[in-house]
Amino acid sequence: MFRNLKAIGRILYGRNSFDQLDDVLGELRIEKDSYVLFLVDEYFEGKDFMKRIPVHPHDILKIIDITEEPKTKTVDAIVAEVKSLSANLPVSVVGIGGGSVMDYAKAIRLMFTNEGSSSLYQGLDLIKNKGVHCTVIPTISGTGAEVSMTTVLTGPVKKLGIKGNFTPADQLVIDPELITSVPEPQRFYTAMDCYIHNIEAANGFRKTVMGDALGAESLRLCRDIYLSNDSRSPVNEEKLMIASYLGGLSLTYSEVGACHAISYGLATVTGIHHGVGNCVVFNQLEEFYPEGVKEFKEMMRVNNIAIPQGVTANCSPEEIDKMIDVTLTLVFMWQHVCGPEWEKIITRDKLRGLLMKM
Amino acid sequence: MFRNLKAIGRILYGRNSFDQLDDVLGELRIEKDSYVLFLVDEYFEGKDFMKRIPVHPHDILKIIDITEEPKTKTVDAIVAEVKSLSANLPVSVVGIGGGSVMDYAKAIRLMFTNEGSSSLYQGLDLIKNKGVHCTVIPTISGTGAEVSMTTVLTGPVKKLGIKGNFTPADQLVIDPELITSVPEPQRFYTAMDCYIHNIEAANGFRKTVMGDALGAESLRLCRDIYLSNDSRSPVNEEKLMIASYLGGLSLTYSEVGACHAISYGLATVTGIHHGVGNCVVFNQLEEFYPEGVKEFKEMMRVNNIAIPQGVTANCSPEEIDKMIDVTLTLVFMWQHVCGPEWEKIITRDKLRGLLMKM
Repeated sequence: MFRNLKAIGRILYGRNSFDQLDDVLGELRIEKDSYVLFLVDEYFEGKDFMKRIPVHPHDILKIIDITEEPKTKTVDAIVAEVKSLSANLPVSVVGIGGGSVMDYAKAIRLMFTNEGSSSLYQGLDLIKNKGVHCTVIPTISGTGAEVSMTTVLTGPVKKLGIKGNFTPADQLVIDPELITSVPEPQRFYTAMDCYIHNIEAANGFRKTVMGDALGAESLRLCRDIYLSNDSRSPVNEEKLMIASYLGGLSLTYSEVGACHAISYGLATVTGIHHGVGNCVVFNQLEEFYPEGVKEFKEMMRVNNIAIPQGVTANCSPEEIDKMIDVTLTLVFMWQHVCGPEWEKIITRDKLRGLLMKM
Repeated sequence: MFRNLKAIGRILYGRNSFDQLDDVLGELRIEKDSYVLFLVDEYFEGKDFMKRIPVHPHDILKIIDITEEPKTKTVDAIVAEVKSLSANLPVSVVGIGGGSVMDYAKAIRLMFTNEGSSSLYQGLDLIKNKGVHCTVIPTISGTGAEVSMTTVLTGPVKKLGIKGNFTPADQLVIDPELITSVPEPQRFYTAMDCYIHNIEAANGFRKTVMGDALGAESLRLCRDIYLSNDSRSPVNEEKLMIASYLGGLSLTYSEVGACHAISYGLATVTGIHHGVGNCVVFNQLEEFYPEGVKEFKEMMRVNNIAIPQGVTANCSPEEIDKMIDVTLTLVFMWQHVCGPEWEKIITRDKLRGLLMKM
């Protein structure tokens, strides 16, 4: 059985297309008391960009703290707060930011229409009801959250996505102008999430011709950008947004692999951000992705990036064990990497050895 | 202003995924008297494949004659016939076949909800009302009709698509097993529609980074298939379906060019099929696409394809003039090829010279 995949409904793409957001949301503001819930990356607080967000009188705008990875308890708190402010549901939940903010938007919109805590729905196809309309607007590129069918959340017991046909956003705005101000090295780390997706997707048992095609083009764009000496030219900024979109889409037709499985474990204990965490992990995965890791190191060299060292140096043996526990729950990723016999290959000792190097 | 593009709603992809069609349509059969309108390429008449189509008692199945390119009068006739058979509208119009059958499905579903002849709607954004649900299932690959936002029809005065956000299908089934029986040279001609799309999209003023990325990967897949000596291996059949999908999608972010503009004119008078017509035209367009035409000739050589010669040999000067008239109406294509000053370059004499060589 194949999944009958739901795609993003509409895509507005073009430089400065963000200026059309008011028109896009206007189509949804049908009732007099319609309102939009905007979630905006804290990075923009106090910046001129805030004035460009088309906030109407009844709308709610929340600045999102992204110091930590998205949490189920924050999702639940925002839904409860908005419900306390209005008897109606928003006509769209708009996420303006990176993967964290977009994942918050995708999760929050689902929790307006599904009962209980969002932690109850971490997994595949657990959501019961269609959420409210959701608009995602990336302002940093690489995660693929703008197109993916998952919203990755850290809950009380696990870091795992709410994944399924209800999760993809309804509206995507791709405006290359929005990522021009992203500081380094965040931009590099987030972009490498895309690069790593492509390497993971292409090397495994669950790959498909569709996934390979989308991922191969995304990979070529990553190379164009990061093996050049001009990764921040306007055309390379635009290529990065497209690479992220195609890389995210390719995962719909394949699967992430060893880096994401270990990175999720590492993040659960250390709280390390997804982009940089992936880089720390991927840097040690020559065994799984020899060519990819070699090229990744070249991209770091060309772009003068030094990733954090000794991330696990101060972790206790119990903390390392907890990382391994989380990593081993990600069965579908390991099946993709190693096939059905993955447990013979991915031992606790192997994972411990890798984690100790990070 | 950028278009807020509507995408295909759902995609079912995988070898033998066609066998899940009954489940897919089952979700739409909500009322007791719900019915589906199937449009099936005449190629399948009397073949075993017909038994695999999940036709329910109230459904209507029509065999579609594709001897000629899709016509507005046929669209209108089928809509009138179905309306005379049932007081309700179908829950989905399902097109099973090539570009012609899929374009019929996409047009017919619109004409259930828009008044008058379909010829009134040939153009951009002329459709007023959302059509009924539409499912497209390619059984020959290359046209991109499975994903495009246009349905190309020949009307009493012009060959032009009904184009806009209402046109894309709602459901796409990509089953690589379905194209294994397509005879040559039809398969080659139709595949070249995809190859030509990619060359046209990449060479012009309206190209975008997104269109380039999708088209570049589609082009690479075409090369994998047609510069190999094994274009009909299972993996190449699957690559061809993906190439067609990505090539069609790339046009949404770019535009076709000189080949399609001239081919539309040629077809209006001679009735030549779109795939073979494109090949006949493209073969003479070194001036516009030197590298592409060279590679196209190499693909013909590798695959032992000989395209028709002397297609315009018996045409009268008046007929050639009519071809030129039609070709010159396709302003947006020529603007893409030559820019705003296109009329200085694309003269009637130049077009006549090209047409006489075909």
